[in-house]
Amino acid sequence: MSLFADLLTTVFERRMPLPGKLRRDTRPIEKIAADLVGTAGEESGITTARQLFERYAAKDDEGKTAFFRHLATAMSVDALRLRAALAAYEEGQTKDSYRALMEAAEPARQELIRRLNRVPGATGQLVSMRKDLLRLGRGDPDLEALDLDFRHLFASWFNRGFLVLRPINWESPAHILEKIIAYEAVHAIDDWDDLRRRLQPRDRRCFAFFHPAMPDEPLIFVEVALTRGIPGSVQTLLAEDRAHLTAEEADTAVFYSISNCQAGLAGVSFGNSLIKQVAADLSVALPGLKTFVTLSPIPGLSRWLEDEGLSLEGATPKRRRELAARYLLTAKDRHGAPRDPVARFHLGNGAIVHAVHADADTSAKGMAQSGGMMVNYLYDLDRVAQNHERFAASYAIASTGEIRALANAAETATA
Amino acid sequence: MSLFADLLTTVFERRMPLPGKLRRDTRPIEKIAADLVGTAGEESGITTARQLFERYAAKDDEGKTAFFRHLATAMSVDALRLRAALAAYEEGQTKDSYRALMEAAEPARQELIRRLNRVPGATGQLVSMRKDLLRLGRGDPDLEALDLDFRHLFASWFNRGFLVLRPINWESPAHILEKIIAYEAVHAIDDWDDLRRRLQPRDRRCFAFFHPAMPDEPLIFVEVALTRGIPGSVQTLLAEDRAHLTAEEADTAVFYSISNCQAGLAGVSFGNSLIKQVAADLSVALPGLKTFVTLSPIPGLSRWLEDEGLSLEGATPKRRRELAARYLLTAKDRHGAPRDPVARFHLGNGAIVHAVHADADTSAKGMAQSGGMMVNYLYDLDRVAQNHERFAASYAIASTGEIRALANAAETATA
Amino acid sequence: MSLFADLLTTVFERRMPLPGKLRRDTRPIEKIAADLVGTAGEESGITTARQLFERYAAKDDEGKTAFFRHLATAMSVDALRLRAALAAYEEGQTKDSYRALMEAAEPARQELIRRLNRVPGATGQLVSMRKDLLRLGRGDPDLEALDLDFRHLFASWFNRGFLVLRPINWESPAHILEKIIAYEAVHAIDDWDDLRRRLQPRDRRCFAFFHPAMPDEPLIFVEVALTRGIPGSVQTLLAEDRAHLTAEEADTAVFYSISNCQAGLAGVSFGNSLIKQVAADLSVALPGLKTFVTLSPIPGLSRWLEDEGLSLEGATPKRRRELAARYLLTAKDRHGAPRDPVARFHLGNGAIVHAVHADADTSAKGMAQSGGMMVNYLYDLDRVAQNHERFAASYAIASTGEIRALANAAETATA
Amino acid sequence: MSLFADLLTTVFERRMPLPGKLRRDTRPIEKIAADLVGTAGEESGITTARQLFERYAAKDDEGKTAFFRHLATAMSVDALRLRAALAAYEEGQTKDSYRALMEAAEPARQELIRRLNRVPGATGQLVSMRKDLLRLGRGDPDLEALDLDFRHLFASWFNRGFLVLRPINWESPAHILEKIIAYEAVHAIDDWDDLRRRLQPRDRRCFAFFHPAMPDEPLIFVEVALTRGIPGSVQTLLAEDRAHLTAEEADTAVFYSISNCQAGLAGVSFGNSLIKQVAADLSVALPGLKTFVTLSPIPGLSRWLEDEGLSLEGATPKRRRELAARYLLTAKDRHGAPRDPVARFHLGNGAIVHAVHADADTSAKGMAQSGGMMVNYLYDLDRVAQNHERFAASYAIASTGEIRALANAAETATA
Repeated sequence: MSLFADLLTTVFERRMPLPGKLRRDTRPIEKIAADLVGTAGEESGITTARQLFERYAAKDDEGKTAFFRHLATAMSVDALRLRAALAAYEEGQTKDSYRALMEAAEPARQELIRRLNRVPGATGQLVSMRKDLLRLGRGDPDLEALDLDFRHLFASWFNRGFLVLRPINWESPAHILEKIIAYEAVHAIDDWDDLRRRLQPRDRRCFAFFHPAMPDEPLIFVEVALTRGIPGSVQTLLAEDRAHLTAEEADTAVFYSISNCQAGLAGVSFGNSLIKQVAADLSVALPGLKTFVTLSPIPGLSRWLEDEGLSLEGATPKRRRELAARYLLTAKDRHGAPRDPVARFHLGNGAIVHAVHADADTSAKGMAQSGGMMVNYLYDLDRVAQNHERFAASYAIASTGEIRALANAAETATA
Repeated sequence: MSLFADLLTTVFERRMPLPGKLRRDTRPIEKIAADLVGTAGEESGITTARQLFERYAAKDDEGKTAFFRHLATAMSVDALRLRAALAAYEEGQTKDSYRALMEAAEPARQELIRRLNRVPGATGQLVSMRKDLLRLGRGDPDLEALDLDFRHLFASWFNRGFLVLRPINWESPAHILEKIIAYEAVHAIDDWDDLRRRLQPRDRRCFAFFHPAMPDEPLIFVEVALTRGIPGSVQTLLAEDRAHLTAEEADTAVFYSISNCQAGLAGVSFGNSLIKQVAADLSVALPGLKTFVTLSPIPGLSRWLEDEGLSLEGATPKRRRELAARYLLTAKDRHGAPRDPVARFHLGNGAIVHAVHADADTSAKGMAQSGGMMVNYLYDLDRVAQNHERFAASYAIASTGEIRALANAAETATA
Repeated sequence: MSLFADLLTTVFERRMPLPGKLRRDTRPIEKIAADLVGTAGEESGITTARQLFERYAAKDDEGKTAFFRHLATAMSVDALRLRAALAAYEEGQTKDSYRALMEAAEPARQELIRRLNRVPGATGQLVSMRKDLLRLGRGDPDLEALDLDFRHLFASWFNRGFLVLRPINWESPAHILEKIIAYEAVHAIDDWDDLRRRLQPRDRRCFAFFHPAMPDEPLIFVEVALTRGIPGSVQTLLAEDRAHLTAEEADTAVFYSISNCQAGLAGVSFGNSLIKQVAADLSVALPGLKTFVTLSPIPGLSRWLEDEGLSLEGATPKRRRELAARYLLTAKDRHGAPRDPVARFHLGNGAIVHAVHADADTSAKGMAQSGGMMVNYLYDLDRVAQNHERFAASYAIASTGEIRALANAAETATA
Repeated sequence: MSLFADLLTTVFERRMPLPGKLRRDTRPIEKIAADLVGTAGEESGITTARQLFERYAAKDDEGKTAFFRHLATAMSVDALRLRAALAAYEEGQTKDSYRALMEAAEPARQELIRRLNRVPGATGQLVSMRKDLLRLGRGDPDLEALDLDFRHLFASWFNRGFLVLRPINWESPAHILEKIIAYEAVHAIDDWDDLRRRLQPRDRRCFAFFHPAMPDEPLIFVEVALTRGIPGSVQTLLAEDRAHLTAEEADTAVFYSISNCQAGLAGVSFGNSLIKQVAADLSVALPGLKTFVTLSPIPGLSRWLEDEGLSLEGATPKRRRELAARYLLTAKDRHGAPRDPVARFHLGNGAIVHAVHADADTSAKGMAQSGGMMVNYLYDLDRVAQNHERFAASYAIASTGEIRALANAAETATA
């Protein structure tokens, strides 16, 4: 329960004095980048890296794009050099020929990004830089290739083994909590009073992953409600006047909201680990918890119904549930995966489509995207690995008999 | 100044329950490794990774060597695949051809090591694994090539930006302090009383780098004595009955011992960063400090004298100092760098050969390796970058006029 | 900078399981109190104490008053017993006769309160109990005498040596920050955005005293603005669009708001210690700070003017300042102390009346209580002890020549 | 598990600058004491208090005794004033007459001690002062009476509600651990290696009480061994080569050593609370623990046997156990309490004499004081309150039938 002691410490760390002072520098950013990759020693490297960050921060979108384009072309892999190194390696596989091959195979910009990261606090700045790149580079093959290098390094740095899970509660630092308000992407948090209602009651929990080098920035967080039984309405779940269970009375943990916080970490996945770790921790802390389940939106349902010429309007709750079940079990994207992105995420994690509910999210957003329908994905810790593997192999969707019956009924009815 | 709060927190973190339980597994380790690289999902990956670590830990040296050899051959880069990917990339530089090239250029074992690292606590286990590899693979080209991949990943993970500097003092946790005793490599610490003498007095400081994923393991540490003036004898510096300065009375910080702690991180350099950061921090905390200097051994002096047919025996202190100066300024290795490894380190960091002292380390070890001679390397924070660059470019050695005069006198005398 | 690590830890402590379980108890609270004082052992004492707290919490005001009346009468000092013990002591001053005298001189309710305090978390409950007592007992001699015992014990427990000073900032826990919003008594904090403006800018500071046994409850806090020069308007000082100084640019620390948080600690004074400690700490952390000063309300000015048949209306700023100066220097209460309560506090601490300002607080409250006038009390750390002593001896008021001139001018003008 | 985060923080706190500087002072200590009690304001009070501590620290035993004698006579209760105040109070019980009575009944030295305690760090100094007083004042009625005031205030300040329970383990700060080595009073800890064996194994625990104002000083600590079954030999329990249970395998927690650390807190009892709290915490953390028991010395056995003209020499183990049981159940001090001090402590806490063992402590000390005999006192959490009360009322000793049978057999045999 020491909470943010470590994070705060690192905050302090980051604010400590840097060796030397930063001299004004007039070199173009491309020259700074070349020098940074070219310098042998770390000392001048840190100064150079700080200068590059300063220069970058001063640029507008056009300037940033130009810098990215420079990285994408002048600091990409050198095909000729790689060809030569490969030939030499094929001729004789020695330590030296292998080293030369590895060096030739790696684009200079990877080393650039690693050296930039030596500056205290740089990791967050690099994540922001990639956020810019994703925004500015969309559709540009060179910039998208450049992005692969950022993502490759981030996947290594934000490895699960380096992440720290932290509870978020009403005793957490305000500067972290204001980010929870800002980043909540599923069921908006209106203000601090609303936040308190999400965090303070004894039947609520929230957890986030942090990276030690970005201690002020949650990477992803999940909000959990402790309940008796599996809920079928998010408005009921979050009702201000509901009775508050004690943690011991609860038998079910409901993951009702999962939000990624860092646009610059797109494609570096944490959600699976987060849910599994939180479920494991909760099951130890509260042995009375028997069921781990989501209450999830079905963001693609309305669009699919429209595409299919179907409608929930005027339909009975049963009929609506049949259509939702059918959508979840049968609608596919072009790869054969479930068409619904939230379904893809949870089924990919090894969860089961457990139940669908009508009138479950009556907010404007809920009505618009899915006619108020929601779904429970069940995490059965004994079966997630098996479910995951079957899904990974063939997009096999685990579901309850009831869900399958609903989907079948829908099919018949439609036919 | 909250010390180990963060580290202790992470200790706790590492001891938290892992999702699921570890089933007994009878697959050969090679099969486990293949599965780990092959699995798409993270869930089964963590279990598989833990199984691999368990299997590895149970092996003897022969078994470990066989495993390393498997990684070195079956999981190396696939030259044919790389050749094809390179050809495709040269034909059309798209995001997809770039991705394929990058994937082909990376040996499968790199991804294996990254996936192993997802297990909480794995980083330390991987560092131990490399320690085994360095010991078992010496001289074997395949295993040395494999080591390049470990080192490549470690250099990325142990990037300066991820390291945390911590003071070590008499209020530090005992399990950390016992490692300081164990790892001290320059001036041995006899026991806990000796350790207290190194840490507790008000004119002593000690700092270590830690990595958040290995919070119980210092990576490197430096011991500092605060003095008035530059000392010329380590026995005087460490004398049990010396007067203790207040921190405010001191004008000089003496780095009298720097020790790397992790054999498995050989070649991943921290010393330069550590000295610079500690000097910068101390100069802020104690503005009275004007001089940052080492009191360093000259480990190669005796051997060089022998090689040159020279001897310190019977020589006057002045003559001994001349020979030491000459050794430091003129003795070179086959690359043209200073022959003395400690000199290479400090000069490479941008330090200056400032003074040499006779009768400076009268311990058995000091007498054996250098006839009791020691040297001060001076860190002038305003000039380290320039010194470093000149050394990096041409092994130019920065030194005081006095040192150069001594070296010249030696040359004349010898001639 | 480890902030609330310690407090959070103690929070955890307080939530740990208590030995044994609390059985339902039907004894009247008076019986429980007698048993608690009567039990020899601590074990049953803690259970009994918890039962008393539970019983008390269930009472309405009438029941609480009856309980207090019981303490005030049945558990007061026993005059007969004291008389006998005193006689015995006068006859022979031995350890035993002294012990008997001390025991007879102490009312049983003091021991009762001490035993209640053995329960973890009890200190805060006792502070709340006294809050009830102050509200219900006003004007009742017995209950006011009872309150003297509460206050006596609290003065001992909340001794300066036991208090912990903590910075409050935007990284503080939300449950502490919401209390800062609630307790701010001088210049109201509207909401969380307003709070952030008070805490987050680099030229703002806030500090609070905590007691280790009440880690979630600030006792008193002071808000500080770092400025260049001494300010003369609180609206300017708090303006949302002001430029933010760096901490290094500031030469003055302005204590612009001090708020006591615990009604149950009335008469146990912390403000003097808080200001002195914060001034001392800031002068070390920011050596550029040369002036420590308040910007204080003059809450009694309007009432005094009315009493004197004077008015600020239509008066020039100069005239208004003269009247304020005259009020501060000459208006006395029945003890001969300054009539203005804020003046009494700061002058009693050893501060100097430094300057008065017209149009300094144009809020409705500021206009009502003092026609918008405010005053700076200057804390000259080298002179506070001397000022304090002269004030303590004879209510001598330290002031600047300018203030005295203004007061004299007012006197002349009025005359 | 945040351990010493809070304590370390407070350490930092204590080292923070004090307001103002300490001027050299030449007044006699008696004058300083009078001034400290006489000053109205806190400011000059803290300076005066620091001066008194400095003056005291410089005194030798004779000077300290003179100072204590001054407190004992000149600053004791004023009988005449008290008599007058009592008379006034009897005449009219008002708030003012009560206040006057309370003030007259309290010796000035109590207020002196409270004001001394305002200095940061003073609590520890006052505890040391009382240690001196106990040593120097033994047998002197005036000084023993003075000690009653110290003890009265300490009992209030070191109230259970203010104490903090902390685990002590191999990750605790070295400066705390060296005090554990120093203070262990039952089974000596030889050195740091021995300490590690007491703390590091997974079946060992240690807990201490701390006071927030003395964070570097444990007040009392208990060492616990987790075992299967109740042990009968301390050498076996502590054997270096024993097998280490996992915490989950244990069914019994053995309190095998309890040591008070502060001579200056003699008579302020913590042991009862410590054992109860540790038992309660362990039973929550490790639900498999069913039995809480001591393995205790019988320090008075040999002396009693001698007094009775009995001897263990040559006796069978059975006979020895009979004599030990008889001693524990029947030997009384002059108040009718058990003659054995350790028995008094545990029986007073509500424990049961559970079993006696021959050859249980074969150390020189164990052989000398009790012929190697030891005893288990059992803490049955459901019955401690009842046992305690019966013991408190009439020194009734709870014991097992087996123990009673042994004691009876001894009686018969002796008769």
